[in-house]
Amino acid sequence: MTKKKQQEEEKIILVTNDDSIAAPGIKALAQAAKQFGRVVVVAPDKPQSGMGHAITINSPLRLQQVNFIDGIEAYTTNGTPVDCVKLAVDKILHRKPDLCLSGINHGANHSINVIYSGTMSAAMEAAIESIPSVGFSLLDYSMTADFEPSKIIVEKVVSQILNHKKLDKHLLFNVNIPAVASNKIKGIKVCKQAYAKYEEKYDERLDPHGKKYFWLTGEFMNHDKGKDTDVWALKNNYASLVPVQFDLTNYTLKKQIENWKF
Amino acid sequence: MTKKKQQEEEKIILVTNDDSIAAPGIKALAQAAKQFGRVVVVAPDKPQSGMGHAITINSPLRLQQVNFIDGIEAYTTNGTPVDCVKLAVDKILHRKPDLCLSGINHGANHSINVIYSGTMSAAMEAAIESIPSVGFSLLDYSMTADFEPSKIIVEKVVSQILNHKKLDKHLLFNVNIPAVASNKIKGIKVCKQAYAKYEEKYDERLDPHGKKYFWLTGEFMNHDKGKDTDVWALKNNYASLVPVQFDLTNYTLKKQIENWKF
Repeated sequence: MTKKKQQEEEKIILVTNDDSIAAPGIKALAQAAKQFGRVVVVAPDKPQSGMGHAITINSPLRLQQVNFIDGIEAYTTNGTPVDCVKLAVDKILHRKPDLCLSGINHGANHSINVIYSGTMSAAMEAAIESIPSVGFSLLDYSMTADFEPSKIIVEKVVSQILNHKKLDKHLLFNVNIPAVASNKIKGIKVCKQAYAKYEEKYDERLDPHGKKYFWLTGEFMNHDKGKDTDVWALKNNYASLVPVQFDLTNYTLKKQIENWKF
Repeated sequence: MTKKKQQEEEKIILVTNDDSIAAPGIKALAQAAKQFGRVVVVAPDKPQSGMGHAITINSPLRLQQVNFIDGIEAYTTNGTPVDCVKLAVDKILHRKPDLCLSGINHGANHSINVIYSGTMSAAMEAAIESIPSVGFSLLDYSMTADFEPSKIIVEKVVSQILNHKKLDKHLLFNVNIPAVASNKIKGIKVCKQAYAKYEEKYDERLDPHGKKYFWLTGEFMNHDKGKDTDVWALKNNYASLVPVQFDLTNYTLKKQIENWKF
């Protein structure tokens, strides 16, 4: 094979996250992805959890090449996870990558969390741009979490995507991984998003000047009793894989209201 | 009717937005909503456009009662639109409102913008909490936009929701209004979300110290040629109404990959 041909065939895999370039999770993801092509990391320079699908429109963005692990090409920005994807395509790669992987997030992004998640919003941004994309999250918030079992899941999911040629060009998966040893993970289960959410409360406090302030707290509640959901799968030591879409049209409700007389 | 009964029957309507309490759009929305019940406004103290479904978890929130128009009860927070809804339920109303209205946004939130929109994320947060909810946006960015035609659309949509008793408890509408005179608006059209999006480019500049920085810019492109989309409706001077869901499971893709061997 000529060198040119080789370069043409080498997949470009964009890796990003919302926990920042410094998070162990993105290192594990880049390492797991390396065997499948040329990995380019573009990640926020500080944690961006809970940023949803935020984009930076009112302030300028910076982009800086940085040292990473294993000689992998890496950049940081002062932007959000969504900005990372946009900048990578327009200013670093000058083309669409073949695959975008986001994570591995420190903490769960199952059920309704897909909406709040910076990890998933970066992956969704890529999918909108017709870049097949996966967000990975480990159910362990700690910075010392063991990502070795997750790396195996990443390899399995990426292999399958690359093995299937005729895929939806907007392919988008939300993969969550239970925080247990590899030999305890029963497999990868294709699921639907559970209707499970935080029941929020605000912790009310007084500042030293006697003025109230509030911290968001909450308890996670699963309102979805099915065995076909991501929450069920994770509880039963499966990694969950939910195929995700960005057409938010509620076609059932659309049908119900089509005869309304406005 | 006893006073108690009257109070019981009065609807509580939460009004919020992402352009901040100071935006003309939220004043127009509160005014249009007033005839339907007790309006309580909880809005960000500064503009929060493009914040997506962001929530504030790492810093404390403040909440302050402020003067508004027409004697309407109003509060501001330093949080995001989603925080506004959560704070309103937990710390101001101490119950779920009967309806949540978000906007009227200064600028379009049709097609893919539903994902980036702070206006729609506030409405979606309410819908997740089983509060029927509508986001309204006017296709005019200017702070001097004429909201009178929009107020009529708000009234028509809210009337219909209140007239229909047995509705999906997660009812969520994304309403966009063309920036034309009332007599030019042909009606309200129930639509699906168009696959239309910004083709982004970054405007690259040098700061006075010779370092690069980037501004996000872009051109809006409609890739969806159907006549059943919000973009089509707006182009043809209809107000568009897209019923929205927060179950992002892609059931079609789910079926396609269910036989994958991981």
